[in-house]
Amino acid sequence: MPKVLITTVPFGDKNRLPIEQLDAAGIEYLVNPIGRKLREEELAEMVTDFDVLIAGTEPITERVMRRASRLKLISRVGIGLDSVDLLAAERRGIQVSYTPDAPAPAVAELTIGLMLSLLRSIHTVNARMHSGEWHRYFGRRIAEITIGVIGAGRIGGQVLDCLGGFGRPRILVNDLRPNLRPERDTAIEWVGKEDIYRSADVITLHVPLTAQTKNMIRREQLLQMKQDAIIINTSRGGIVNEHDLAQVLDTGHLAGAAIDVFEQEPYAGDLVRSDRCLLTSHMGSMSVDCRMRMEIEATEEAIRFLTGQMLQGLVPPDEYEVQRQGL
Amino acid sequence: MPKVLITTVPFGDKNRLPIEQLDAAGIEYLVNPIGRKLREEELAEMVTDFDVLIAGTEPITERVMRRASRLKLISRVGIGLDSVDLLAAERRGIQVSYTPDAPAPAVAELTIGLMLSLLRSIHTVNARMHSGEWHRYFGRRIAEITIGVIGAGRIGGQVLDCLGGFGRPRILVNDLRPNLRPERDTAIEWVGKEDIYRSADVITLHVPLTAQTKNMIRREQLLQMKQDAIIINTSRGGIVNEHDLAQVLDTGHLAGAAIDVFEQEPYAGDLVRSDRCLLTSHMGSMSVDCRMRMEIEATEEAIRFLTGQMLQGLVPPDEYEVQRQGL
Repeated sequence: MPKVLITTVPFGDKNRLPIEQLDAAGIEYLVNPIGRKLREEELAEMVTDFDVLIAGTEPITERVMRRASRLKLISRVGIGLDSVDLLAAERRGIQVSYTPDAPAPAVAELTIGLMLSLLRSIHTVNARMHSGEWHRYFGRRIAEITIGVIGAGRIGGQVLDCLGGFGRPRILVNDLRPNLRPERDTAIEWVGKEDIYRSADVITLHVPLTAQTKNMIRREQLLQMKQDAIIINTSRGGIVNEHDLAQVLDTGHLAGAAIDVFEQEPYAGDLVRSDRCLLTSHMGSMSVDCRMRMEIEATEEAIRFLTGQMLQGLVPPDEYEVQRQGL
Repeated sequence: MPKVLITTVPFGDKNRLPIEQLDAAGIEYLVNPIGRKLREEELAEMVTDFDVLIAGTEPITERVMRRASRLKLISRVGIGLDSVDLLAAERRGIQVSYTPDAPAPAVAELTIGLMLSLLRSIHTVNARMHSGEWHRYFGRRIAEITIGVIGAGRIGGQVLDCLGGFGRPRILVNDLRPNLRPERDTAIEWVGKEDIYRSADVITLHVPLTAQTKNMIRREQLLQMKQDAIIINTSRGGIVNEHDLAQVLDTGHLAGAAIDVFEQEPYAGDLVRSDRCLLTSHMGSMSVDCRMRMEIEATEEAIRFLTGQMLQGLVPPDEYEVQRQGL
């Protein structure tokens, strides 16, 4: 009897449909009993007799797969593949699927929410008001500033769509594949990353975590940014070096940062000490509808696999190529 | 020598241009020495020998004007006229100007920022993360909910424009003058206020404070709203009854509220105790560019008056009519 291990957290929380789908298909499953993102060793210990993994962002490494002799499908709830060693999976004949479109609108909206909170000091003044203090902060409007978007794929593209409602900001965009989605109507300028670091008032990252983007924003890049720039990372932990960001904020450089994703989650590192760093708990995809769509798509893929149907969410070859070339 | 009293706070803070304009015109002026919104009696005492008032939202009542025998122009920095007794001014031959277009984009952006903070629990999770707690909140996306906009004038209209970037939410709109700005391309439904109270997930208010809108949202209206509705007030204090809102939030009704404007400012009332109430300090118009535009427009109007030029920002007759009819 094939068995499914569901490691992503939460799962079936706001809508039990994915659980019901598994029940209806008569599939045996176990939901992550630890209730948080698993560490490599925890997953390696847990995964041994499962055929399918409905996976979060926990590390699915060579070492984990070595222990997973029955594993035949990794069905990722979400878009990022940095947590999955695709080449190890390929060598072992483990297929990998994902749900790349589902999270995009929710991540984009959180990004705009973080941007407006920082630009208008919403979270700061709220805390002061609740402590009985009244202070009117000056803010900046989106239409009056330059916004740098690094990564113009599914999520970056949605961010551009959202910005379209806020007048005509200057928007600088960088992507490995410029002129992606040229039909988009928001006026943008394609520039190099360095131009964004130097010129943008708000910089938001929407790239995958790869060998190339790991530590892309270090002390050096942060110091190139304007004194009152804002940096937002809702993509993946590790792209902005957390330690460098905490240090640079400590020196008074940058107006603020918003960080939703961390190298290690749950996060409790240096940035917690910085008032100028707005912190959220990897909530980009956590709108009820997007989270549900991700869970259902990943579950349906698992069911398709276990009932001998054609898979619909297989990760395309270029994602393997990225890992093969160490890009 | 004519003299100008500037009561609005802040003034000339991020950009000294309005101060320099007054200096260049050789006009004598006094900037509010108390540094916060004046109370009626403070203004009455201060106003006696001034010819022009560059005014914030402090009460400019019959009692104040009685003490202001030289006053000939009230130049309001902003849009609301609830603080000015227009009929008393008319009787005394005091002209009133305002800057109705300048604040709109900044108020609309703050409104969207408050909406996204509440929908995604940004301020809440930020506070928890800074206390070392990790909890992933579920949220809702704009495109998935019904948004009720009460008041579709300059500011409500801009809110509709901003929402246009977030997909296709259901948008219910109520206004005294339906079909205002029919050229707007966001799909909206014109409905009664009661329909908005009952059906909307997010309700945002963009009406002036008048006899008709005072206490428009009381306990009764709040309880008509959905259990998990969100109410946002960036218009004027007194339109939502603060005491009723605090009580209703205490009972667990409503998912949250965001309040930027208060009956008495600085505010330190009941709502401070409610975690579910996001509080900001009358910051709607507080973007550097909008605030500056308001200050410059109001100052230029004062200078026009004192140098015998034609006024450009006179309050139109229908605003007097609203107060005359007690509307």
